[in-house]
Amino acid sequence: MSALPAPDPSMADAIRVLAMDAVQQANSGHPGAPMGMADIAHVLWTRHLRHNPADPAWIDRDRFVLSNGHGSMLLYALLHLTGYDLPIGELRRFRQLHSRTPGHPEVGITPGVETTTGPLGQGLANAVGMALAESLLAGEFNRPGHELIGHDTYAFVGDGCLMEGISHEACSLAGTLGLSRLIVFYDDNGISIDGEVEHWFGDDTPARFEAYGWNVLRGVDGHDMNAIDAAIVQARAHAAAGRGPTLICCRTVIGRGAPTKAGTEKVHGAPLGADEIAAARKAMGWNHPPFEIPREIYSYWDGRARGADLQSEWQTRFDRYAEAHPELAAELCRRMAGELPADFAERARAYVLSTQDKAESIASRKASQQAIAAFAEILPELLGGSADLTGSNFTDWKGVEAVRRAAGGPRSGRHINYGVREFGMAAIMNGIALHGGYLPFGGTFLTFSDYSRNALRMAALMKQRVVHVFTHDSIGLGEDGPTHQSIEHAGSLRLIPNLHVWRPCDTTETAVAWQCALARPASLGMAVHGGGPSALLLSRQNLPFVARDAATTEAIARGGYVLRDMVGARAVLIATGSEIELALQAQDRLAARGVATRVVSMPCTQVFDAQDAAWRDAVLPAGLPRVAVEAGGTATWYKYVGTTGAVVGIDTYGESAPAGELFKHFGLTADHVAAVVEQIL
Amino acid sequence: MSALPAPDPSMADAIRVLAMDAVQQANSGHPGAPMGMADIAHVLWTRHLRHNPADPAWIDRDRFVLSNGHGSMLLYALLHLTGYDLPIGELRRFRQLHSRTPGHPEVGITPGVETTTGPLGQGLANAVGMALAESLLAGEFNRPGHELIGHDTYAFVGDGCLMEGISHEACSLAGTLGLSRLIVFYDDNGISIDGEVEHWFGDDTPARFEAYGWNVLRGVDGHDMNAIDAAIVQARAHAAAGRGPTLICCRTVIGRGAPTKAGTEKVHGAPLGADEIAAARKAMGWNHPPFEIPREIYSYWDGRARGADLQSEWQTRFDRYAEAHPELAAELCRRMAGELPADFAERARAYVLSTQDKAESIASRKASQQAIAAFAEILPELLGGSADLTGSNFTDWKGVEAVRRAAGGPRSGRHINYGVREFGMAAIMNGIALHGGYLPFGGTFLTFSDYSRNALRMAALMKQRVVHVFTHDSIGLGEDGPTHQSIEHAGSLRLIPNLHVWRPCDTTETAVAWQCALARPASLGMAVHGGGPSALLLSRQNLPFVARDAATTEAIARGGYVLRDMVGARAVLIATGSEIELALQAQDRLAARGVATRVVSMPCTQVFDAQDAAWRDAVLPAGLPRVAVEAGGTATWYKYVGTTGAVVGIDTYGESAPAGELFKHFGLTADHVAAVVEQIL
Repeated sequence: MSALPAPDPSMADAIRVLAMDAVQQANSGHPGAPMGMADIAHVLWTRHLRHNPADPAWIDRDRFVLSNGHGSMLLYALLHLTGYDLPIGELRRFRQLHSRTPGHPEVGITPGVETTTGPLGQGLANAVGMALAESLLAGEFNRPGHELIGHDTYAFVGDGCLMEGISHEACSLAGTLGLSRLIVFYDDNGISIDGEVEHWFGDDTPARFEAYGWNVLRGVDGHDMNAIDAAIVQARAHAAAGRGPTLICCRTVIGRGAPTKAGTEKVHGAPLGADEIAAARKAMGWNHPPFEIPREIYSYWDGRARGADLQSEWQTRFDRYAEAHPELAAELCRRMAGELPADFAERARAYVLSTQDKAESIASRKASQQAIAAFAEILPELLGGSADLTGSNFTDWKGVEAVRRAAGGPRSGRHINYGVREFGMAAIMNGIALHGGYLPFGGTFLTFSDYSRNALRMAALMKQRVVHVFTHDSIGLGEDGPTHQSIEHAGSLRLIPNLHVWRPCDTTETAVAWQCALARPASLGMAVHGGGPSALLLSRQNLPFVARDAATTEAIARGGYVLRDMVGARAVLIATGSEIELALQAQDRLAARGVATRVVSMPCTQVFDAQDAAWRDAVLPAGLPRVAVEAGGTATWYKYVGTTGAVVGIDTYGESAPAGELFKHFGLTADHVAAVVEQIL
Repeated sequence: MSALPAPDPSMADAIRVLAMDAVQQANSGHPGAPMGMADIAHVLWTRHLRHNPADPAWIDRDRFVLSNGHGSMLLYALLHLTGYDLPIGELRRFRQLHSRTPGHPEVGITPGVETTTGPLGQGLANAVGMALAESLLAGEFNRPGHELIGHDTYAFVGDGCLMEGISHEACSLAGTLGLSRLIVFYDDNGISIDGEVEHWFGDDTPARFEAYGWNVLRGVDGHDMNAIDAAIVQARAHAAAGRGPTLICCRTVIGRGAPTKAGTEKVHGAPLGADEIAAARKAMGWNHPPFEIPREIYSYWDGRARGADLQSEWQTRFDRYAEAHPELAAELCRRMAGELPADFAERARAYVLSTQDKAESIASRKASQQAIAAFAEILPELLGGSADLTGSNFTDWKGVEAVRRAAGGPRSGRHINYGVREFGMAAIMNGIALHGGYLPFGGTFLTFSDYSRNALRMAALMKQRVVHVFTHDSIGLGEDGPTHQSIEHAGSLRLIPNLHVWRPCDTTETAVAWQCALARPASLGMAVHGGGPSALLLSRQNLPFVARDAATTEAIARGGYVLRDMVGARAVLIATGSEIELALQAQDRLAARGVATRVVSMPCTQVFDAQDAAWRDAVLPAGLPRVAVEAGGTATWYKYVGTTGAVVGIDTYGESAPAGELFKHFGLTADHVAAVVEQIL
């Protein structure tokens, strides 16, 4: 093991000048946080963080999350200085098109970036997910004498992260579960964009985190190397004792090093200007031109030798483990690579076909529970949960063990009671997926996808394989009324790029939706084409089973397909989920009146849109008028029916009443659908 | 003043049986919370709450918010028993279509319901907004010797509300601002839907709220009338001393009174069943049939005489005030009625016309700031703010005073630094609007409308006049990259029923957008036709001014209009906001090639859709092919262009780069728009 470098406080200035210079060059960006947290980062990254710049995918590396992602230059400077594949040319191109140094850190773009941050508070929740994944993975794969999984998760957070509600959700759960290897640094600089936070953020943050059961280290001088070092040592000792997560509260000066602007909001989000930068350089005694770092400073920072040693030592342990437990080792590698078992496709197909044999007419949320139970047998990495609606979302399955607090953190279980924390759940799921080893899913009511919406977006942007189970997907929810009845939600989720939204109509489509969601590629480290999250929109009420031949069953995975055709069809009925029943009934009524139609089931518009034109044109032939039916907002369906077709849906809020009455009240009946078809013909 | 009734613990059982019976009759609903909180409600409503059942609109009434809205039967029972216009027949029709007793409390449906609750945590944030409005209104209108405004805001919250992140956002701000007349009862029953909360909610909640600067009363027995009474007395004394909000932590048994199910999750959200109800009746000694309340119990509960006394005493004070300060009294009445000043329309119109004279090419966020400054002069009720992006959203104006902590609560100021709390801000704004007296608006980046989304929905459902200023409305945001660049947001906000979404193209459209947003009717107490929130989507970058004649300027308020026409137009270009510039340039390029087109500006699709067919057909004539242009998701535009038209937009995530480069990169150029028009012709 190579020795740690001797502490040299001046070395943090390398971060400061890189941050100042890159922001100045880009003429935009945030120098304040990188300059203020440079000393903390310096101590953590040179003396504690166990990582290997040559292999950012090493599975037992410590995770580092910059939750205050606007301080991206801090992270880019660290990655560059410690020897990641991020040359100085990329720092020069900070915030330029297709550089590896975008305005906020983006996983998949920059080696060493563990998660995409910027939307405040979510990085912290991602870190909670990572620490939880680490804890469970250690429980699942470590064996006596083989501590293969054992890494820390570090997160930097600012005042913004801690004002955001999601910080409460994630940190309350982290404390409850006792995630001891989670160590968070609070950049307590007293400044946010509007100025001095005391006027809008008067919390005693240490007391707040103690109320969550965290270990809190108060009043650490964030510019004193020894104090920072001692705090990290203490946090790690606390972690080793399994006594819960740690918050290190660091008093810092935002923009430290900027002679006139430090300590004010002026240094937060704008270039410092040439004069201030020159003065800062002078004060630091930094005599090098922009983007030039002297060799001895590079040498001080270089983490490659130490990283190679760390990983090599681990690899030796892994090899011993692989010898003692060859199957476990192979399984660990498979899961950390995000690969499905070799027999997944075959077994999934068999399960889908079995639903045709069973021919059950049940709620799609119930069909989803059956699918979960089936897939959980195939995929031990499946890690479910619900935001306190387990018995409504049906996200659990028979015999599943709940994830519960244990010394150091949970060591077993495959179902997480996330509590009433929809946003936290979604962002924690993102962290679990980013960590690797698990394939997370979680449930809530579809309407409350509103609460978690930006974390769904982040999963889609990061191409993470997570699955959202959104039940009670329409007015079919009934008596709980308009606050709980989805109207615009299916449509608005479909607008999120790269989020696959499935609204299946029966057991078979539900099984295929699950199959497709699980089969999206995992994206670990570098983004993978086709990777991304899925949302399953499921009914509260029973849905009639639809019999299909093999080819039709096969077609479901194309997102839109002909479910029931008639010779000489004069119109196409497009429907999803619970409204397939109405479309099929309307088809019958119209047939009785001599009007032949085709019924197209469109469980996933995004997947349908991605099919080749031949498929799309075959399903929706040009010239045939179309009517779409969905118990929700109509706006997004005009893409398929045009200005000459029609949409039967609901563009107002729901009502509190039994579901059956509501469908009638809102005109979602076979008679009305049939009448609309006749109208447009 | 009539005497308070003598305490009688058994009277709370009237709530319990009504809750049990109504849920049983509806065969759905939540008996657990009403039965568990019956004793607390009993003491608060009979001994402390200052309200008048005969006049739910009395402006100085105490506000009561049931944040755990699933316990709606608690509130309906209280309103019925104390004498509001909510006859027993309505309780029999609990959760039936068009009853006044929907599954969750809905403002505008039921007299005495102050806000619509159910989406957890938001009622609590509404209460913070109400308490803030009360505090500011007292500061603005009370005069020495005339304490006209002085009421408390009470809220009931459950574990779910306190797990939600928004509880952190709202309560942290309430503590910071010192909102002393806010008194919250925590129903600490240890149970949520998934079971015993200790496994997913381990917070020391009292310590957490102390960390927010709240006065916390711990361990109150929620079934001991004297203990509850003493706690309220203490909380009100604390409020009178101006020392911050109070949380009363009540230990309760969920479903108290249900012999076998009390204290378990089984009593939370399902009917108890006939046997359990019979046993509960027996145990309580309650011998009356369902929905029959003996006269003496009605008489005990009846709050009408006390309410009349309270309001009459206040009215006397108001009359004295009106004599001493007639203009203030008239202004207070106007503002609490939600009416605009008589000269609003005229002055607003003059302001709109002045923007045509000035002809400035500035960012629409800057144009918005100018509009705010102009309208703030006309409307003293305008109460702005930002979620820590004041200098970016431009929600402040010259000379505006910030709302700041003061003893008892803020007494002045018209700009709220909400901190980095988008969801909290939106829900607090809803509470301010519901309270009356102020017209709230607040800003953040458009992308972070995701964070606040469900509160926007709630404003739209409740028909509340609030205005959301969403700046940085596209890739025009530039270097901050995809996490901050809106793609799907304009489209997805337009899907929320009754939310008016404006995306203006220049100073004049921005002024009209503000004018229309402010002129939507206020909905206080009973819902008003046409009332509702608005969202203004504004550019970071400068937008060229467009000259218009008087008729064209007038047409903006119709949501969509012909901005620049050509004789013999062969196609229609529809655009919004920053893309109007592209559309006009494309029109010029096409004209040069001999292709005449029409440019339609569509700043608000919802308002356009609400115009009569004659207007819509005149703007978008049948048969003319159409191309829509917007720097965002394309899906919602097919409603206007059909399957034969085209949409120029962005259906992937943005990139981090200077804005100008991004518009080119994503094909948002006049040349490309012109090419697309030629393609479809």
